[in-house]
Amino acid sequence: MKNNKAIIITIGDELLIGQTIDTNSAWMAKRLNELGIDVVRRIAVGDTKEAIVDALDDAIARAAVVLVTGGLGPTADDITKPLLCEYFGGKLVVNEVALENVKTLFIRRNLPMLERNRKQAEVPDNCTVLQNSRGTAPGMWFEKNDAVVVAMPGVPHEMMGMMEKDVLPALQSRVTTDTILHRNILTAGIGESFLAEKIIAVENALPDYIKLAYLPSNWTVKLRLTAKGKNELQLTQEIEQFQQLLKETVGEYVVGTVDEPLESTLQQDFTAQGLTLAIAESCTGGGIGHTLTQVEGSSKFFTGSVVTYDMSVKERILGITAEDISQYGVVSENIAIQMAQRVRDVLHTDIGFGITGWLDKSEEPDKEPGGTVWMAVAGKDKIASRKFVFPYDRQRNKEVAVQMALLMIWKMIHGKAD
Amino acid sequence: MKNNKAIIITIGDELLIGQTIDTNSAWMAKRLNELGIDVVRRIAVGDTKEAIVDALDDAIARAAVVLVTGGLGPTADDITKPLLCEYFGGKLVVNEVALENVKTLFIRRNLPMLERNRKQAEVPDNCTVLQNSRGTAPGMWFEKNDAVVVAMPGVPHEMMGMMEKDVLPALQSRVTTDTILHRNILTAGIGESFLAEKIIAVENALPDYIKLAYLPSNWTVKLRLTAKGKNELQLTQEIEQFQQLLKETVGEYVVGTVDEPLESTLQQDFTAQGLTLAIAESCTGGGIGHTLTQVEGSSKFFTGSVVTYDMSVKERILGITAEDISQYGVVSENIAIQMAQRVRDVLHTDIGFGITGWLDKSEEPDKEPGGTVWMAVAGKDKIASRKFVFPYDRQRNKEVAVQMALLMIWKMIHGKAD
Repeated sequence: MKNNKAIIITIGDELLIGQTIDTNSAWMAKRLNELGIDVVRRIAVGDTKEAIVDALDDAIARAAVVLVTGGLGPTADDITKPLLCEYFGGKLVVNEVALENVKTLFIRRNLPMLERNRKQAEVPDNCTVLQNSRGTAPGMWFEKNDAVVVAMPGVPHEMMGMMEKDVLPALQSRVTTDTILHRNILTAGIGESFLAEKIIAVENALPDYIKLAYLPSNWTVKLRLTAKGKNELQLTQEIEQFQQLLKETVGEYVVGTVDEPLESTLQQDFTAQGLTLAIAESCTGGGIGHTLTQVEGSSKFFTGSVVTYDMSVKERILGITAEDISQYGVVSENIAIQMAQRVRDVLHTDIGFGITGWLDKSEEPDKEPGGTVWMAVAGKDKIASRKFVFPYDRQRNKEVAVQMALLMIWKMIHGKAD
Repeated sequence: MKNNKAIIITIGDELLIGQTIDTNSAWMAKRLNELGIDVVRRIAVGDTKEAIVDALDDAIARAAVVLVTGGLGPTADDITKPLLCEYFGGKLVVNEVALENVKTLFIRRNLPMLERNRKQAEVPDNCTVLQNSRGTAPGMWFEKNDAVVVAMPGVPHEMMGMMEKDVLPALQSRVTTDTILHRNILTAGIGESFLAEKIIAVENALPDYIKLAYLPSNWTVKLRLTAKGKNELQLTQEIEQFQQLLKETVGEYVVGTVDEPLESTLQQDFTAQGLTLAIAESCTGGGIGHTLTQVEGSSKFFTGSVVTYDMSVKERILGITAEDISQYGVVSENIAIQMAQRVRDVLHTDIGFGITGWLDKSEEPDKEPGGTVWMAVAGKDKIASRKFVFPYDRQRNKEVAVQMALLMIWKMIHGKAD
């Protein structure tokens, strides 16, 4: 049964030489999944005819839905459109709606339209054309051997627009599928193996249509339950019972039960409690503020931050004295706590957070090795501080430090600060 | 000829339901490419035996090198190891070195070792074991039908350690390949189509062993030349001649000619000129500072920043009056310029940068629509400002805004501010 199966093909040499990270596939997979369509394989190939045809043959043999992105641009390395036209035995003709769209875009940008842009409005005569409301390259919907092949631009927001507007609704009305449900539990402070031991009885009690996966990332472990079946109501009840059982079994290590990043949880919790937050970042350079403000509505609780990348800023804006820095060391518990308290006071918030550390090389190797980070969080009447020694490279240490910072703030406002 | 060809297989349901973005593949592809090994396909499959075996069959038929990541952890959803053992007809035996490694890790973490962790030291008896210096799961090197299959953990830094230490050196001594060279030119301020028209004569003059690709991203376009052949010296000369020719032809739109992000270019340029930078970020929430500090050595020029997410911070730390904010609007040229000047003065730097905007919804929709961002950069004796209206969603608008900010700072220190 290939009926509810999908394969995603992404096209572009940049994916095969490591110049680009493929974010399109994950987004498309998530959306297909919500319709109950199983993505069984993702394939990335380069800009060559042989490789693309090979991938199409493979995909059509295995799946009823094949989504293709990339290679539809106006330049010579974009070969997907003529290739698909030949593959499905059609010929290129101008699509008037697409041509109007290209013309309008060029008028709006106040630029002359080039012959190569006019060519973007040409489409195979044997496909259904998907108009591109966010760019010049139209999408194409082909059918062959009970398989649907949809080609879309590789530019993420153009692809997303086309998916939302045309592709997903058309697929939904077409496929008859099982319901697929996911439920998650985010844990922190316990390793994957210990977690597995702790929940072994629950794991063994799962029926074969509910799967459990462990997703360790940035010093947290996410548990994901996936249920598949016909009866959505019954399936929902069952998966939520197991989620609840897991939550009780994991106990104190549970941080959340929704599949969203910690910054979203924080946004909801701060807003619900009516609290505000200020941050003094040193080694993370702005990464904590950046992460918090990825979420819409973060301005309701995140007042702002001071990035004290150079030592002088700790003095100038936060009023931490050079004497203290020299006495305790710039990477120390004392300075982290002062940063948390002073940024809270300077920015007039309820909670203050401070972080200071050496992400890679230490400038005080005799005192603290590279990777040493001190964090502190100052609440209304409680202060917590913690030292980490992160063992990775600069960028990964930063990434984990940001996650541990969010976790420490979360603990403070949940009365779990230690 | 499958001799210099590689296929990367990533295993994990999280890749097929869109829960995880695959960053491993891009990293592995880049490193293989540096050895002259062509990645011809990347395949992602779920945690099922059928899908993994299917992918292995495919890959071994097409490539001499197959790199596999994922599914080696200690929990029940990790099935790659027993599956590979069976696939290659071996049986699991304890590897003493791997067992020592697991024991040491648990002693260092001050945790009891569990039976499931002991099991991680079991490996198929028909593979070469690759020790994991950063975790508990060993890697495995199999050979079958002239193909090498290497299985590694999916945790990125564990995989990377294993690749650097064992896999890449072993592959290098084994494959005899063509040289593959890449050269890049980063352009900004010109669309893909116009760029293509401008360089059409150079593109047509390229020999068939040098390919040109266009990589549009975040309002810039990168041109990538890729040359492949036997004679490295001659190839280097040729590709660099074409790179130079492209650079001259593209002219004023060229930002850089190295394949590195703008933040690395800035780090080098600021350090070379002995300049320092301070930033006042509003809507980007810390994203500019975060991006700048991804680069080692950024502390040499980046003094710090003030994230004025709430309006009050603009007043408290930067001394921008409530009257001005009310008169000009918080998202306005006047406020962006004041932010740039004041943060430069407050943090005592050479250059100051200010940004204020509405990333998604505007709070002053009658004045400025959502997506409106004002940026300003204040140098020693020059100020430049610019307004953007970004058309995407919150996160993408932020991403593009950060890139445009870096570009504006780059222009200022190169005397190109407009």
